[in-house]
Amino acid sequence: MPASVNRQILLKSRPEGAPSRDNFALVETPVPTPGEGEVLMRTLFLSLDPYMRGRMSAAKSYAKPAELGQPMVGGTVGEIVASRHPQYREGDIVLGYGGWQEYALSNGRGLRKLDPAAAPVSTALGVLGMPGMTAYVGLLEIGQPRPGETVVVAAASGAVGSVVGQIAKIKGCRAVGIAGGTAKCRFVVEELGFDACIDHHAPDLDRHLEIACPKGIDVYFENVGGAVQRAVWPLLNDFARVPVCGVIAQYNATGPSPGPDTATILRKRLLVRGFIVWDFAAKEADFLRDVGAWVRDGRVKYREDIVDGLEKAPEAFLGLLQGKNFGKMLVRVAR
Amino acid sequence: MPASVNRQILLKSRPEGAPSRDNFALVETPVPTPGEGEVLMRTLFLSLDPYMRGRMSAAKSYAKPAELGQPMVGGTVGEIVASRHPQYREGDIVLGYGGWQEYALSNGRGLRKLDPAAAPVSTALGVLGMPGMTAYVGLLEIGQPRPGETVVVAAASGAVGSVVGQIAKIKGCRAVGIAGGTAKCRFVVEELGFDACIDHHAPDLDRHLEIACPKGIDVYFENVGGAVQRAVWPLLNDFARVPVCGVIAQYNATGPSPGPDTATILRKRLLVRGFIVWDFAAKEADFLRDVGAWVRDGRVKYREDIVDGLEKAPEAFLGLLQGKNFGKMLVRVAR
Repeated sequence: MPASVNRQILLKSRPEGAPSRDNFALVETPVPTPGEGEVLMRTLFLSLDPYMRGRMSAAKSYAKPAELGQPMVGGTVGEIVASRHPQYREGDIVLGYGGWQEYALSNGRGLRKLDPAAAPVSTALGVLGMPGMTAYVGLLEIGQPRPGETVVVAAASGAVGSVVGQIAKIKGCRAVGIAGGTAKCRFVVEELGFDACIDHHAPDLDRHLEIACPKGIDVYFENVGGAVQRAVWPLLNDFARVPVCGVIAQYNATGPSPGPDTATILRKRLLVRGFIVWDFAAKEADFLRDVGAWVRDGRVKYREDIVDGLEKAPEAFLGLLQGKNFGKMLVRVAR
Repeated sequence: MPASVNRQILLKSRPEGAPSRDNFALVETPVPTPGEGEVLMRTLFLSLDPYMRGRMSAAKSYAKPAELGQPMVGGTVGEIVASRHPQYREGDIVLGYGGWQEYALSNGRGLRKLDPAAAPVSTALGVLGMPGMTAYVGLLEIGQPRPGETVVVAAASGAVGSVVGQIAKIKGCRAVGIAGGTAKCRFVVEELGFDACIDHHAPDLDRHLEIACPKGIDVYFENVGGAVQRAVWPLLNDFARVPVCGVIAQYNATGPSPGPDTATILRKRLLVRGFIVWDFAAKEADFLRDVGAWVRDGRVKYREDIVDGLEKAPEAFLGLLQGKNFGKMLVRVAR
């Protein structure tokens, strides 16, 4: 039986540079009623992801911006609490795109039923969801790592980076992570099994990275840009591959940020390719099969960073952009 | 019967920034005598190509630099004038890498016999040689143009660019060239059949390029960098491909030159890939078959810019770097 109040977090204004809590507004609205062919979902988990920074801006991007005055967009795991859709029943747990709110309607498009017995349902937003698949397709389809090669990824304790490095290890590569702080670096090496992890808070990132990559870098999974990119670039080997899935260090930049030097791309015969996960939608079944199996047999581990209560979403999101999270960032909206 | 004097042009010094005639020295040495297993080639044509600028520098590159005090390196078409090699006879015409000199020894490695009846032998240095194959593999293997897409290439009247645009037309694309001056642009459109050609000497390159590419740019064959790259970049469509085969505008730069913005690579899901022709050596037979047929049936045309006499090579090469040539740059060293 749904409550009568739907708390929502709206996008109130668009940030110039770094976003702040003032860009969001918490409001209470009536819980909507599903029409014919619709379901009402009660949000259990809301996923917070770096790409949301892009949606806050009006600038042209690969997806249209979130609308001002509307709930912020985002992936959710929810429970069907009312259904007028033939394929869904009350009590079903679904992956959807409900946004930053406690209840959301859906016409069923884009929903996927989850089996709570197969894996904790929150993993559908992380290791077995969009972030895990981003790692899987970016590394394997673009990075094409070969045994013995060196793979470097930043945000290595995060939802994407942690999977990149662990798949690299499964494929016989040397995996080198970059993360913020001693605790994260220890986790990346001791729990996730990376060969090395460099703390980007420590001085001399360039030198530590060089030491950690004695045979150079063959795949740089680009998800941060900025100082890490600048440290990686000189170490790339000939024919290195650079899947570009994010540039979190540059999301808040108000001007353009220089990228790789064209002469170096030529000289080293580099491949640099931007992608979003849905460019490889056809690989979803492969991803669920492979990473599902690796999670079950313990070869791929994951860590979640969960805050409780929808009202915590803005603060948690702003922290995510600053690397304050430790693992896949989730908001537990309801139990 | 060979002459007794072998004129050579040596690399005397390495340039800082733009090269000059002072970097070269013309010397006369005795014509060498082939040892067992060697041939002596008399150079008929010497190819001048932008990549040679890279060889003049000591900087790390995909090939080792030319040696100071030695003849500059370069592709040649020559006639065997003395042979102690079982596979070559006097009178054979061969493609080789004889360098900037009138006579060169070879142990046969890397030589390829040419059939003067099949095509003018000079084409083995141009449309049916390294430049033509650079266009072929870069456009087809990396650019992967689809019918109806727009392909842009600079130096469009040159050895590589002219072939890029003509193959783009064969593949059903809109071909837009960029060239220096009215005469070249007219040639590119009227003779080579490009849909448009923009004179980069004229003001407002950006606007003219935008007008010439009403549906944006899907493949940018990068062979110049600099101002053309900056004009192209904002017009690239999502999923555009950028094969990078040269950055002639940057060869003389003494510092790094900024390349594509990483955030744009991500947002547009671009593929940027550096290559040299021999990365695709396995495609040589396909290239000779396809482009050979297109040249024979007139679908691919070519133009040569020939200067007479080895002593003209430095001046012609410096002109090439400034875009003064009109067509594939060759030195006719002997008739």
